Amino acid sequence: MEKSLEEVRPVKAFGWAAKDTSGLLSPFKFSRRATGDKDVKLKILYCGICHTDLHQLKNDWGFSQYPMVPGHEIVGEVTEVGSKVEKFEVGEKVGVGCLVGSCRSCENCTNDLENYCSKGIATYCATYLDGTPTYGGYSDMIVVDEHFVVHVPENMPLAAAAPLLCAGITTYSPLRYFGLDKPGLHIGVVGLGGLGHVGVKFAKALGLKVTVISTSQRKQKEAIEHLGADSFLISTDPDQLQAAMGTMDGILDTVAATHPILPLVGLLKTNGKLILLGALEKPLELPVFPLLMGRKLVAGSGIGGMKETQEMLDFAAKHNITADVEVIPMDYVNTAMERLAKADVKYRFVIDVAKTLKAE
Amino acid sequence: MEKSLEEVRPVKAFGWAAKDTSGLLSPFKFSRRATGDKDVKLKILYCGICHTDLHQLKNDWGFSQYPMVPGHEIVGEVTEVGSKVEKFEVGEKVGVGCLVGSCRSCENCTNDLENYCSKGIATYCATYLDGTPTYGGYSDMIVVDEHFVVHVPENMPLAAAAPLLCAGITTYSPLRYFGLDKPGLHIGVVGLGGLGHVGVKFAKALGLKVTVISTSQRKQKEAIEHLGADSFLISTDPDQLQAAMGTMDGILDTVAATHPILPLVGLLKTNGKLILLGALEKPLELPVFPLLMGRKLVAGSGIGGMKETQEMLDFAAKHNITADVEVIPMDYVNTAMERLAKADVKYRFVIDVAKTLKAE
Repeated sequence: MEKSLEEVRPVKAFGWAAKDTSGLLSPFKFSRRATGDKDVKLKILYCGICHTDLHQLKNDWGFSQYPMVPGHEIVGEVTEVGSKVEKFEVGEKVGVGCLVGSCRSCENCTNDLENYCSKGIATYCATYLDGTPTYGGYSDMIVVDEHFVVHVPENMPLAAAAPLLCAGITTYSPLRYFGLDKPGLHIGVVGLGGLGHVGVKFAKALGLKVTVISTSQRKQKEAIEHLGADSFLISTDPDQLQAAMGTMDGILDTVAATHPILPLVGLLKTNGKLILLGALEKPLELPVFPLLMGRKLVAGSGIGGMKETQEMLDFAAKHNITADVEVIPMDYVNTAMERLAKADVKYRFVIDVAKTLKAE
Repeated sequence: MEKSLEEVRPVKAFGWAAKDTSGLLSPFKFSRRATGDKDVKLKILYCGICHTDLHQLKNDWGFSQYPMVPGHEIVGEVTEVGSKVEKFEVGEKVGVGCLVGSCRSCENCTNDLENYCSKGIATYCATYLDGTPTYGGYSDMIVVDEHFVVHVPENMPLAAAAPLLCAGITTYSPLRYFGLDKPGLHIGVVGLGGLGHVGVKFAKALGLKVTVISTSQRKQKEAIEHLGADSFLISTDPDQLQAAMGTMDGILDTVAATHPILPLVGLLKTNGKLILLGALEKPLELPVFPLLMGRKLVAGSGIGGMKETQEMLDFAAKHNITADVEVIPMDYVNTAMERLAKADVKYRFVIDVAKTLKAE
């Protein structure tokens, strides 16, 4: 006989959820599974607000499920571990990112690329192995297979660490994979938002020369003085573009809206690499001749595997890298979403879940 | 005082040229420079007809110059060498490809990537260092700096070797650079024309599994039985595409007309590489989500450097690779162009210059 939801998920949980495509979040009671042999249960302390949350809340990509508890930049404290858990202990600070499951046996999974597993299970808005929906980090606790949990290095500020679980790994992974991690290389970072500002920090820590590419002159001071970028380029200024043609080894393009990539391809040297990180629904216009004339490439990259996520956090801790965050209370989340839609945040909202989420 | 053309280029030459954008070729008298210290003079034996010739004749790319003597797949015999020439001797069989000059000092040139030098000088339809136009291989002889001349390995059939100077290096180079040269990898080759059929041969010689991707069922037998491809895929058949999704490490896309690349991206595994080789004027539609979901890339690649061109010819000789050619007399060239425009050739026309070009 099939088990009831209460049997499969007997543990009471509480969070904020959207009930429909209005995306409006409100208090929500639900349940989670009991801590299995290989599971880690954590009390959620902080959860970052990723731009993906906004897309999913509004069903921009067409596969949203409601009620939806968003949140995949989770930092918490372990409160219980299963009998076969090997890597974690109660009391430890840990992180959970965009994934809570994958097939564990395909070529991607065996190569530590769970993020590209076709059966990957997202932290929210997906269906878990037990057939029930996954709910994310805008909630009091979560139960996750230890394989999808990472250690948050000691002394790392927890709120500012949360966005690294998504924004951090999304920018760190392509710098490594595409060989844009050699000191002295010159990269561009397009868009100075949640992803971009962390990308600048990782690139600088790797010893790269970094040019921030933006449509907005008002970000120049911030980019150079605060984030440590070496230079700044207004992408709509033909003279500035012309002067920088053929100077970059790679570009991290974090823009999640349709935009011309021809000027970006032009900024690349021979063998240059334009890495798209923004989840664009519509196709971009790909200029072919300019690619051929310099053996250039345009690639996509999406988060990273679990092993690399841990490596990224350790690297970040070593180099004192965290996200710049605005910590907010849970009941500010709908306002935060409105501001996020206008890019009115430097650079990531993080919900102080532990202190502000109140069971009603 | 400025030198007259007769002083700069005193050596009488003869070939076939187009006089205007009709692209119609007819006999043409012109002159070439005397053999300089570092120059090699060659009697042209064979010249392949590249699809680029057709584009240039018709001014499809907008920078054609007339009169135009096309031809950049040249095989000839050395008849004179300059006093400082080190690599070549009179009587030797040599090749000249798409390039006859470059700056020799930029980052590309010093990395053996003369093909990506921004001051690269094309074998025809360009301006040489002496300020005069370059004329290609549809002619009796040519004088070329030895740096841009390669040895044709002994015993290589000369007519069938000519297309390797362009079609050969254009497919060989990306297989090497993008790491698609490891035995057991699976690649697709889109389009079975001049480039595609040589690409299949190189890929097989490298130990790859090769799937030819075509719109035309009638090429299946040829692809498998004659060229040695492992399988064949009709790109317009949804069932065949579906069955092959996520199976390829790379794709060489030789199609020089606008076409959808979404299905091709779908055929790639995680980390798969779609390499565009066709010189497309119009942008293609680039699907972004599918790139992100598998860290896939779309790149361009154009011919190769001189060092690699020699390496390619040596590899081809070792593995008995040449192009499949239809050898034609010079006065058939206009008919050949008409047939080429209809892809009515298996797979490359090569002009028997030595035997059929008559000075009138």
